[in-house]
Amino acid sequence: MLSPAAPNAGQITIALDAMGGDHAPASIIGGAHLVHEADPHVQFLLFGDENRLHPVLNRYRSLKDRARIIHTDKMIRGDERPSAALRASKDTSMRLAIESVTEGRADAVVSGGNTGALMAMARTCMKMLPGIHRPALASLFPAKNGNSSVMLDLGANVLVDAETLAQFAVLGGVFARALKNAAQPTIALLNVGTEDAKGPDHVRSAANILANVELPGRYVGFIEADRILTGEVDVIVSDGYAGNTALKAIEGTGMFFATSLRQTFTNDPLSMAGGLFAYMGLRRLKGKVDPRHYNGGVLLGLGGLCVKSHGGSDALGVSSAIRLAAALARHGYTRRVSEDINHLMHQDSFLSHGA
Amino acid sequence: MLSPAAPNAGQITIALDAMGGDHAPASIIGGAHLVHEADPHVQFLLFGDENRLHPVLNRYRSLKDRARIIHTDKMIRGDERPSAALRASKDTSMRLAIESVTEGRADAVVSGGNTGALMAMARTCMKMLPGIHRPALASLFPAKNGNSSVMLDLGANVLVDAETLAQFAVLGGVFARALKNAAQPTIALLNVGTEDAKGPDHVRSAANILANVELPGRYVGFIEADRILTGEVDVIVSDGYAGNTALKAIEGTGMFFATSLRQTFTNDPLSMAGGLFAYMGLRRLKGKVDPRHYNGGVLLGLGGLCVKSHGGSDALGVSSAIRLAAALARHGYTRRVSEDINHLMHQDSFLSHGA
Repeated sequence: MLSPAAPNAGQITIALDAMGGDHAPASIIGGAHLVHEADPHVQFLLFGDENRLHPVLNRYRSLKDRARIIHTDKMIRGDERPSAALRASKDTSMRLAIESVTEGRADAVVSGGNTGALMAMARTCMKMLPGIHRPALASLFPAKNGNSSVMLDLGANVLVDAETLAQFAVLGGVFARALKNAAQPTIALLNVGTEDAKGPDHVRSAANILANVELPGRYVGFIEADRILTGEVDVIVSDGYAGNTALKAIEGTGMFFATSLRQTFTNDPLSMAGGLFAYMGLRRLKGKVDPRHYNGGVLLGLGGLCVKSHGGSDALGVSSAIRLAAALARHGYTRRVSEDINHLMHQDSFLSHGA
Repeated sequence: MLSPAAPNAGQITIALDAMGGDHAPASIIGGAHLVHEADPHVQFLLFGDENRLHPVLNRYRSLKDRARIIHTDKMIRGDERPSAALRASKDTSMRLAIESVTEGRADAVVSGGNTGALMAMARTCMKMLPGIHRPALASLFPAKNGNSSVMLDLGANVLVDAETLAQFAVLGGVFARALKNAAQPTIALLNVGTEDAKGPDHVRSAANILANVELPGRYVGFIEADRILTGEVDVIVSDGYAGNTALKAIEGTGMFFATSLRQTFTNDPLSMAGGLFAYMGLRRLKGKVDPRHYNGGVLLGLGGLCVKSHGGSDALGVSSAIRLAAALARHGYTRRVSEDINHLMHQDSFLSHGA
């Protein structure tokens, strides 16, 4: 969970694809309102159909002065194939929102629309940062100890090479510095064991690089997927194949427990009574692991900041994605990552590995 | 969960490494006793120190006639490196138990000892079945709908090629036939998406093979890791890199929920009261997802049956592993897999892929 803006927080402009998401535009503008209440230094560009946006925006008097509607009646549908969506994206709310970042009118874009289309469009418009091999999808995970960890890549790629994993460590390290007040975040590589000899070649080879280079953080070795939610490291680096598998396994297990628990408390009168008594405790548990507080996947490695909000998010979920975007923008994420990637790529121990 | 022996169940002999596991030999012999009570057609060879086994066995009068102790005072320690353990394995309880299978005195071996040592020793002694590229570690997973799924490979390998994944589908299909009363078990490939174009090369290529060959089951396409616990397919096939990652992510998330739930019910008096009322319901939930009912990983593809029981298992957990071994032995798993792998390898659509 992100804390409210720091006292010295500067002005930030967030571009919102106000038409993207199951509950758009109400959830998007509602999310902006929640952020605005806690952090008045954030202002918004709302891209979408003004006939639908105006009535919603009118509900939030204080937000009105800080949000400008840029009208378009074109939008990307949720079920379009990314390639087709990209070709026909001119003047859509998603495309215009992204372009407002590349043209310098906004510091970051947030969309809850079609994930594949957003990723493709962000890559096309924002371009990769010089020297970065591949973009990576990153998100925050909750943890038992109240800490939270950054994990990447959650599925922008499948398998990648060792040098790319080392770059992901930099992308993730700067992310953790922006969000976690950690000057030297701990960085671990996801693997199927913790001994040096365990795991596929590209992972062992990446470990060899990471142990010998300077990073925006401290490399601490391998971590297994059963420790993702312990919060014991700040950054977990993985290829998209294992990372996406772990992410979905965690989601599926969460669903499994939630369903089983609900059945448990509705199956018989005694347990139901127990469930009512325990309601407050369970609500607190739900608050602790509420995915809405961890909403927001960021496509890292591009020349601009692009945050994907979950399509089914409500205003609270959208507000988490916006805060994530604002925190990265305030930290100067893109510039800092450029510098740190440049530093990585010129270190002898990186160069000698590549050779 | 395995059902008790079928009425026409034949005599089966299970070799037990009675010294392997945190609570051995009590948990091992206790587990044998639980199986014996439900299935009197199973008999046991107990390998270990007779001075420690006799007092435990004497507690179970009815088991005594069906269990024979083979004495050895040598055993594999839990912290030995697999290679070192293998070299010094002569006359250890683990080694003798495995050899009783290769020499035809037992139908399967169960051990709760050092996993790496057991895998290495089983491969050395039992050899790979002719034509099989790689062994795979398989286990049953619980599912929301009360069904259970077989998943492999859980970590005997890391990345494998497409032909090996196709072989794993056969290993898993025969496993499901043995355990789930399904003549045509459904078989899916674990992937990071369900569209044809998604995933790494070896997974997409394996899909191409599986869609075109005859299998001991029916290939139904890709499945993502968030659906492992839904029970919607009988067999989930994966390389060991993604499979082990998913397994550990599921375990870690289970731990996360268990800990959070416990904290919830002990944090304040009202929730505690609720927890007491809900106790019966939670007990039932615990029974449903109790890992002890799903204990037992089987190393498939070898010339004999070897089941790894979790090192921390109690008697109930050990009994699940023994039932798993007995069910596979009764089904004639090793012979059937040989036939079905042979059938796979001679099909034109498999051969043309490999060429």
